[in-house]
Amino acid sequence: MIDETLHRITPPAQDWLERAVARQLQLTKPPGSLGVLEDIASRLAAIRQTLKPEVLRQRIYVVAADHGVVAEGVSAYPREVTAQMLYNFLRGGAAINVLARHGGIEVRVVDAGVDANLDDAPGLIRSKVLRGTANFSRGPAMTCDEAIRSVATGIELARFAAAEGIELLGIGEMGIGNTTAASAVAATLTESAPEAVTGYGAGVDDAGLQRKIVAVKRALEINRPDPTDALDVLAKVGGAEIGVMAGVALGAAAEKIPVVADGFISTSAAALACVFCPTVRDYLFIGHRSRERGHDSLIEFIGHRPLLDLQMRLGEGTGAALAMHIIGASARLLGEMATFAEAGVSDRGA
Amino acid sequence: MIDETLHRITPPAQDWLERAVARQLQLTKPPGSLGVLEDIASRLAAIRQTLKPEVLRQRIYVVAADHGVVAEGVSAYPREVTAQMLYNFLRGGAAINVLARHGGIEVRVVDAGVDANLDDAPGLIRSKVLRGTANFSRGPAMTCDEAIRSVATGIELARFAAAEGIELLGIGEMGIGNTTAASAVAATLTESAPEAVTGYGAGVDDAGLQRKIVAVKRALEINRPDPTDALDVLAKVGGAEIGVMAGVALGAAAEKIPVVADGFISTSAAALACVFCPTVRDYLFIGHRSRERGHDSLIEFIGHRPLLDLQMRLGEGTGAALAMHIIGASARLLGEMATFAEAGVSDRGA
Repeated sequence: MIDETLHRITPPAQDWLERAVARQLQLTKPPGSLGVLEDIASRLAAIRQTLKPEVLRQRIYVVAADHGVVAEGVSAYPREVTAQMLYNFLRGGAAINVLARHGGIEVRVVDAGVDANLDDAPGLIRSKVLRGTANFSRGPAMTCDEAIRSVATGIELARFAAAEGIELLGIGEMGIGNTTAASAVAATLTESAPEAVTGYGAGVDDAGLQRKIVAVKRALEINRPDPTDALDVLAKVGGAEIGVMAGVALGAAAEKIPVVADGFISTSAAALACVFCPTVRDYLFIGHRSRERGHDSLIEFIGHRPLLDLQMRLGEGTGAALAMHIIGASARLLGEMATFAEAGVSDRGA
Repeated sequence: MIDETLHRITPPAQDWLERAVARQLQLTKPPGSLGVLEDIASRLAAIRQTLKPEVLRQRIYVVAADHGVVAEGVSAYPREVTAQMLYNFLRGGAAINVLARHGGIEVRVVDAGVDANLDDAPGLIRSKVLRGTANFSRGPAMTCDEAIRSVATGIELARFAAAEGIELLGIGEMGIGNTTAASAVAATLTESAPEAVTGYGAGVDDAGLQRKIVAVKRALEINRPDPTDALDVLAKVGGAEIGVMAGVALGAAAEKIPVVADGFISTSAAALACVFCPTVRDYLFIGHRSRERGHDSLIEFIGHRPLLDLQMRLGEGTGAALAMHIIGASARLLGEMATFAEAGVSDRGA
């Protein structure tokens, strides 16, 4: 299923991109004066193959999982918080819920690997691949089969979204311990020293940060993930939510739906998706620059400029949600602005 | 009227700010993880004196005027474009219209000093103070009385907005030649060399840029505006739309309504408002960092961090419109997020 999806990912239409660039020169504004919004709109035109790209129906998958590495004392919060926050998402009390309501974005909560028996609830998608990963500082986080299933789950979620008419996807997450996994992924993919891509996460103290760095170092030494093999990296030092989010990014690209990464963990998944298939990059937006150490390396690895820099470091898809407003705005500017001719406005040198 | 308004401006309530900061520590997120959004929410709580600040009803005043200094060849576009774009705003075809629709923001178009007889139209507020300023590189742009009337007009617009239940205001503008006026204001207030705060505006060529710099230099030499006297600066080297926007900022502060500046010209008006009354700063947000040279000096003068940096340089209130989504989001996060206790989520060290 992953291979079949990778084969379906093709580059956005360059000719539509050029048409969009030309169209923007006719709209009633000085050339280039909408800055990044023009670049976004042109990319959307190329992805959707239209000069009136619509990204009205938006959804964020908030993917949750637990992590065996918490046994190393890498988190400021107890492990139970993953499931507790998942219920908070389902009741609408978390930051992502508020931002999604504010932006008119649907939220779907995905149990990819929470170490708890969760009750059924509206908005909860039960896709448990495992009950928390193994402690990857002692051996691989997952089996190869589990890693494949997590990615396949994400691909399916993107397909569901496409079938339901979703035009813009976001990926967010919750998982106590998952900044440590993202640091291990980032260190591997960007070939950085663990201390350069490991930060305070949800708020460990300095001793906790040292434990995180040691855990990442050990994980890399013991597992020796191959940076050119996304599945190997995911299975050895990733997590179930990271695999699902990578799958959503792959599936979105295959379905020609633009997809927005959020913070450090979500971007680590997006980076893995780019290793699976570099063309995913053309469908990807980085919602914001997180304050979490290591995010910049992943952003540089992917090579897109983050849309926002609001010193956030919460995850859940919160930065993606705010960025989706800007992406929606960009699409509408291209589709709805009047041209100089339509508005009877004199162009330069007229 | 200006003096009476200045006397009504009092600092936001520090005790509500402290309560908001304390409340945010109880919400289901790591402390500080919403970054700038938490700072915004705390400021809104202090301004509105509530832990559930609402900024649902939002309006942008797009203020238009003409400028005598265009005779010096400082603009890439002909003077008629001011009135033509004003009609574009009224028909809903401009960038600000699209962004306002996208953000649920009302747009009101204000004729502060357009050099044309404009037809009545829904959404147009006729407050013509003059028909284009005089060429300020040869003498003062306005009389002191005209400058006072422009500021008083803005104060009245803020009062109307307050009476109509507006909870968040934005200031945007249109006026061929007005980046030259804003550069003269910026050079005066920030005591910068004209070349340091004069840029390409809507897109002059290098020769045009030199003409702008010369025009600003002459304006300062001939008029000698006093940087400590906002009215003197406005009258000598400002413009009618700059005066109206400064008045909106003053009136908003008096009415305890937060107000969002947009790009270079709008921020020059906000800076003048801060010279009229430094407490205005507490009610002010800088929507975005414009690519126009000189904006950074004004931002530094005011001392707030811009919320967005999207390489825009269009004006009209476009950057403010996008920032208003983030300000609204911040308010809702404080008002709507669940606490750790409400959500049954374990806090740190629990």
